[in-house]
Amino acid sequence: MADKSEKTKARLPRGFADRSAEDIRAVEKMMATIRSVYELYGFEPVDQPMIEYTDALGKFLPDQDRPNEGVFSFQDDDDQWLSLRYDLTAPTARFVAENFDKLPKPYRSYRSGWVFRNEKPGPGRFRQFMQFDADTIGTPGVAADAEMAMMMADVMEALGIKRGDYVIRVNDRKVLDGVLEAIGLGGEDNAGRRLTVLRAIDKLDKLGIEGVEALLGKGRLDESGDFTKGAGLEEKQIARIVRPLLLNKGEKIAISASEALQFGLGQVDEIEADDLDGPVYAVYDNHETLARLREALPETPLLDQGLTELETIASLCTASGYATNRIRIDPSVVRGLEYYTGPVFEAELLAEIPNEDGQIVRFGSVGGGGRYDGLVSRFRGEPVPATGFSIGVSRLMTALKNLGKLDISDVIAPVVVLVMDKDTESLGRYQKMVAELRAAGIRSEMYLGGAGMKAQLKYADRRGSPVAIIQGGDERARGELQIKDLIEGARMSAEITDNAEWRATRPAQVTVAESELVGEVKKILAAQAEERSK
Amino acid sequence: MADKSEKTKARLPRGFADRSAEDIRAVEKMMATIRSVYELYGFEPVDQPMIEYTDALGKFLPDQDRPNEGVFSFQDDDDQWLSLRYDLTAPTARFVAENFDKLPKPYRSYRSGWVFRNEKPGPGRFRQFMQFDADTIGTPGVAADAEMAMMMADVMEALGIKRGDYVIRVNDRKVLDGVLEAIGLGGEDNAGRRLTVLRAIDKLDKLGIEGVEALLGKGRLDESGDFTKGAGLEEKQIARIVRPLLLNKGEKIAISASEALQFGLGQVDEIEADDLDGPVYAVYDNHETLARLREALPETPLLDQGLTELETIASLCTASGYATNRIRIDPSVVRGLEYYTGPVFEAELLAEIPNEDGQIVRFGSVGGGGRYDGLVSRFRGEPVPATGFSIGVSRLMTALKNLGKLDISDVIAPVVVLVMDKDTESLGRYQKMVAELRAAGIRSEMYLGGAGMKAQLKYADRRGSPVAIIQGGDERARGELQIKDLIEGARMSAEITDNAEWRATRPAQVTVAESELVGEVKKILAAQAEERSK
Repeated sequence: MADKSEKTKARLPRGFADRSAEDIRAVEKMMATIRSVYELYGFEPVDQPMIEYTDALGKFLPDQDRPNEGVFSFQDDDDQWLSLRYDLTAPTARFVAENFDKLPKPYRSYRSGWVFRNEKPGPGRFRQFMQFDADTIGTPGVAADAEMAMMMADVMEALGIKRGDYVIRVNDRKVLDGVLEAIGLGGEDNAGRRLTVLRAIDKLDKLGIEGVEALLGKGRLDESGDFTKGAGLEEKQIARIVRPLLLNKGEKIAISASEALQFGLGQVDEIEADDLDGPVYAVYDNHETLARLREALPETPLLDQGLTELETIASLCTASGYATNRIRIDPSVVRGLEYYTGPVFEAELLAEIPNEDGQIVRFGSVGGGGRYDGLVSRFRGEPVPATGFSIGVSRLMTALKNLGKLDISDVIAPVVVLVMDKDTESLGRYQKMVAELRAAGIRSEMYLGGAGMKAQLKYADRRGSPVAIIQGGDERARGELQIKDLIEGARMSAEITDNAEWRATRPAQVTVAESELVGEVKKILAAQAEERSK
Repeated sequence: MADKSEKTKARLPRGFADRSAEDIRAVEKMMATIRSVYELYGFEPVDQPMIEYTDALGKFLPDQDRPNEGVFSFQDDDDQWLSLRYDLTAPTARFVAENFDKLPKPYRSYRSGWVFRNEKPGPGRFRQFMQFDADTIGTPGVAADAEMAMMMADVMEALGIKRGDYVIRVNDRKVLDGVLEAIGLGGEDNAGRRLTVLRAIDKLDKLGIEGVEALLGKGRLDESGDFTKGAGLEEKQIARIVRPLLLNKGEKIAISASEALQFGLGQVDEIEADDLDGPVYAVYDNHETLARLREALPETPLLDQGLTELETIASLCTASGYATNRIRIDPSVVRGLEYYTGPVFEAELLAEIPNEDGQIVRFGSVGGGGRYDGLVSRFRGEPVPATGFSIGVSRLMTALKNLGKLDISDVIAPVVVLVMDKDTESLGRYQKMVAELRAAGIRSEMYLGGAGMKAQLKYADRRGSPVAIIQGGDERARGELQIKDLIEGARMSAEITDNAEWRATRPAQVTVAESELVGEVKKILAAQAEERSK
């Protein structure tokens, strides 16, 4: 035994989490549903390791303010650098490039697993988290992108999220790049400033219009007094960026109706009647949105290409019966990863659910993706277009739990056989009872600690056990055992106040012959199940 | 597009593996079965992250010949060292120590996940592999160890492995340590030599008696000419170690019957009749084995403690109906990890199945575990006894696949809707067909590549698709579509030689009205399912 002073401190590293039984069961249930949709769409499972050569992963992470660029890396024996994957897309690109000739084209695959970011952890921001992706590789047509958006809408509904409580937002990087080009931020030299602008736009939900405008202009002073340098755009340029962004947010935005008009929203479809100067909704049909964008934006080849792609996606969605309330063209969608080259998506939960601090808020993004035509190509030296979608598993699970869509109350805690005599012979007998219960499919265990009867019952209570089995020496001599209904017992001691009620309940404890163990436990579990279903 | 000369090389790092759809599905099926047994025994899922503080993991790995001691490590921003977990037990110990007061005691939990070893990779030896563990923490009694052994026997049978095709071997570290102590290898000073001896014993299956004896003595020259220094024991000491080891191997051992007698096997229960000088079986009943060990080994407190523990385990197994053909006391079991303190287990498949080179061999170990009373204690500074079992997922999956116990032929490849016209309107129509099929629960996809009809059929073939849907302009004009039965089509072109047979088959292609799409596809899939079941 180590001396107290020498003992190692048991501590979870910063930014990592242990997962509870409840969370694990909820995630498994959720992932089985997502998997069934991916399978229905004809995607096949595939899996890459968590470690890749650093150069194979590339440098595509957003917000790389730190020297190690957000990735956990270490050197192998042969001096080559290895990294923990930061997403599932980069390893997929490596796998497809390496096995290109063996795979059917297009290659439709899905995968789930942990990814790692060597970032500063914060509330709800972990350094290890799980993603669940689907990808179509080897097809340039935006029909593949449209399919991704439709599949994600189907995933949301398969999970029990009502139509109207989610939306799949779709944009195109070429539209964003086209706008940037149009205001003079094209070319290699402006890559850094373009990134600053995209990052600012990406913070619309968090900072609101004013915050984004500050970040696009001279800079922003946040509440803590920290100043973030802006992109240095002129007001006219900002107006040109902000206008299309606001065109179709389709959600409450913190500006007044008059401001909305001033920002060129043109027509506001729905205004909260008694709150004209409050939040404003503006949702156009996808085709109307695109027509308005065509009108508002300058004519450049890049913008034309981006808008044409979005028009095709909108048409395919309409033809397949996915309306604007499910898949919505929204020019404010950015997606942080640098490898996107065309359409980008974001799955957002519109339902208002309590956040970590108990405040009721719109839940926000639970996943996203886009087209990454360069990612496989950089290994192959030939074009290998690709598109994919990634679900943030923990975030979606949290949302579903809050929405009451992940009921795992069908998992029953084990029956506990108490240990009254501790000699080997008696233990063998208790073990045999447990074996009989298990053979009948009843979750059960023999108490394995060293405590007395009272503490053993407390243990059963703490586990949430439905039933406890007791056999002391006297019962043993008579070939009997006691069965305690712990649920009924708890209910009786909590609720029952008079004798009439007492008589109406089922007994909380029965004594039966050893041979009746399984039958009697089954009867009690059935009665408990019936009561739960009421 | 990157220049050819600049492109990154797509390569899997050494010692890591991509997993195929088939493997993933097989593992999922297998793990669902294992999970159901763990749950039946009353264990609860819990999960720790893959990264822990290096000091929290401790140094317990076997065969640490390299400076970094078999672990992938890297330094955090705050200069603290982090490591990827090398097993699931050390993180569990950290978790339990950190959350001790919140957990029920004993704490019964299970977990599965990837672990990492920074070792020299080799055939079948990976640097990332999956384990599936169950642990009971907080109980000193060996009833908990006996339960682990029984549960593993139940897991094997739940997976379809016949009784007699597996065995759970049980030993006790105190017996091994007692023997070492008896031959003068006790005390701190001899820790290194003890380890060398244990490592040598652990290689019995691989090197045979002679090899182990060489490693226990002066050393061993292997086939490649490499010399491994031995433990330097005398012949008399070796006989004392080797004798109990051989007592009950219960498997073919490469010595003759006469040698077996010479090594003190005493009585050989079963000898292959026509091969008296060949391999020998020796299997005693557990109680007989232990009686013989009592007789053969010197009387020391440590040996007495170890043998008493094994006697209790044997009695509990007998009382619970687990005979020697399922759980077998075997004093040759070592288990490499240094944190074991009492009973140790090993699950071995006795079935003879083809290995990677196609040779028929006994498959060997698919998991193991043991008591680790010091692992939680080293955080707490108070005794927290614990025992657990770990299944090697990939190895067990490989064995089950070879035994034909992981049939995943119920997964049907998707129906492919071919794309004959590529305008947006037509794409929308094809997309709608796919949506209808999916709504009926039929796995299906629209072909998303750029190829012509012939290449599209080849794609469907490569995917193993059961059915292809074709609608060109002419069919569209008539409101019809063609449905190709690809399984029947392949069979017809492969097998059918005369006209009578031809007429007896179902048609490989039908033309139906658009409205009959789903009904007709269902009919064909049902016919294919019936044929498969024949």
